[in-house]
Amino acid sequence: MRAGVASASFLLALLLASGASAESLKLPDNLVDLRSPQGEAWLLETHALQAYFPISVAFETQKTQSYCGVASMVMVLNAIGAPAPESPQYQPYTIFTQDNVLNEKTDAIRPRETILRRGMTVDQLGQMLSLYPITVEVHHAASGGVDEFRKLASEALASKNRFVLVNFLRKALGEQIGGHISPLGAYDEKADRFLILDVARYKYPPVWVKTSELFDAMNTTDSDNENKTRGYVLISGQASAGNAAPP
Amino acid sequence: MRAGVASASFLLALLLASGASAESLKLPDNLVDLRSPQGEAWLLETHALQAYFPISVAFETQKTQSYCGVASMVMVLNAIGAPAPESPQYQPYTIFTQDNVLNEKTDAIRPRETILRRGMTVDQLGQMLSLYPITVEVHHAASGGVDEFRKLASEALASKNRFVLVNFLRKALGEQIGGHISPLGAYDEKADRFLILDVARYKYPPVWVKTSELFDAMNTTDSDNENKTRGYVLISGQASAGNAAPP
Repeated sequence: MRAGVASASFLLALLLASGASAESLKLPDNLVDLRSPQGEAWLLETHALQAYFPISVAFETQKTQSYCGVASMVMVLNAIGAPAPESPQYQPYTIFTQDNVLNEKTDAIRPRETILRRGMTVDQLGQMLSLYPITVEVHHAASGGVDEFRKLASEALASKNRFVLVNFLRKALGEQIGGHISPLGAYDEKADRFLILDVARYKYPPVWVKTSELFDAMNTTDSDNENKTRGYVLISGQASAGNAAPP
Repeated sequence: MRAGVASASFLLALLLASGASAESLKLPDNLVDLRSPQGEAWLLETHALQAYFPISVAFETQKTQSYCGVASMVMVLNAIGAPAPESPQYQPYTIFTQDNVLNEKTDAIRPRETILRRGMTVDQLGQMLSLYPITVEVHHAASGGVDEFRKLASEALASKNRFVLVNFLRKALGEQIGGHISPLGAYDEKADRFLILDVARYKYPPVWVKTSELFDAMNTTDSDNENKTRGYVLISGQASAGNAAPP
């Protein structure tokens, strides 16, 4: 299943079956709400907070139920402070939005109409981000183990101007239900948990998830991506030589 | 000048005159960016963090340059978890958006077309919030002193499910330029500063401001509100008996 893809009627049926309220989904026990006493304590105890403030103050709700990748791109580009395109409503100021981050160049990777219907894969996410003057590395879960993921992602979140996006299968975390993309906000070493800043804010709050569970949820195959596994994207505010000028 | 009202051409002229880039405005020295080492340290040292996580994870960019009050309403209602109206794009889930928070009942207080042209006053902000099942108190700066503001606002931010919106004159803080509305995120006692989560994210980051300077910026007259002073709105997640059902 593609990132961000889920049939509304199927979800409704599931909600009704589980007795959950249509307004808010109950968190499974393995996930801890950032806004809970435990969730706040983990954030305040970690020393690796470089990413948290820049990315959390750029928090966005995905504009449609398939735009998780688009909202995630916007958060990272705004957190990095990449030069943003114009928007008629904000002139003379500029900021990335879920409208202006997409353009003819991103259409060549995945047309907007297709994103609207089916979301995007982790490879398309990486390709679109590479259009901007930042450094982007796509990692499929299957090509490295959980220890490599923990090391690379926690180092990035503890570094200035580096960020991490994850593409995972919600169902594998006990969430509802399909493929999803969101930024990570922090890593707490004692708890060995990552904080997911879930862009579907109408559905789930930011949650702390165990590293092994997040890795397993990324280490799932995506039928929309030649059955390659999902994974993560490391982004750094330094433009690499291979990157084009901003589209 | 009304909240959120500023002429784009005037702003542009100012920007060109000051040599600032059109993408980002330089912060005056009296304001400290939350994302700076000092800004982060103040947040991490304060013990009064009850409001911060719920309101910061509901951060929104105002949809237009006059929608600061609307974005602020949305942030507080989502932080409180008030029952949200439906949106076609999020069914079956619900969340407050800068579209669905306004309706015929808010139009009776200030029509959407007028908000779009001229923003809203602190009294209209309080009246609109009072349509929802929460408790709302509007305070004009002139009707109490800086000590009363410090006490009431810091107590609210240190309490569960209580939030504060401020209506101030940007110019009085050294910012550009007119009346503005945004939520507060936290209070740091040692620095005696409040954190403003500025909803004009295309223009300013979240900033720490001295209590006395914020009070002086609220203690300015609003020609759109019979020259009453600006001020602040205290909001609590408890519905008061006088409040109507959600519109």
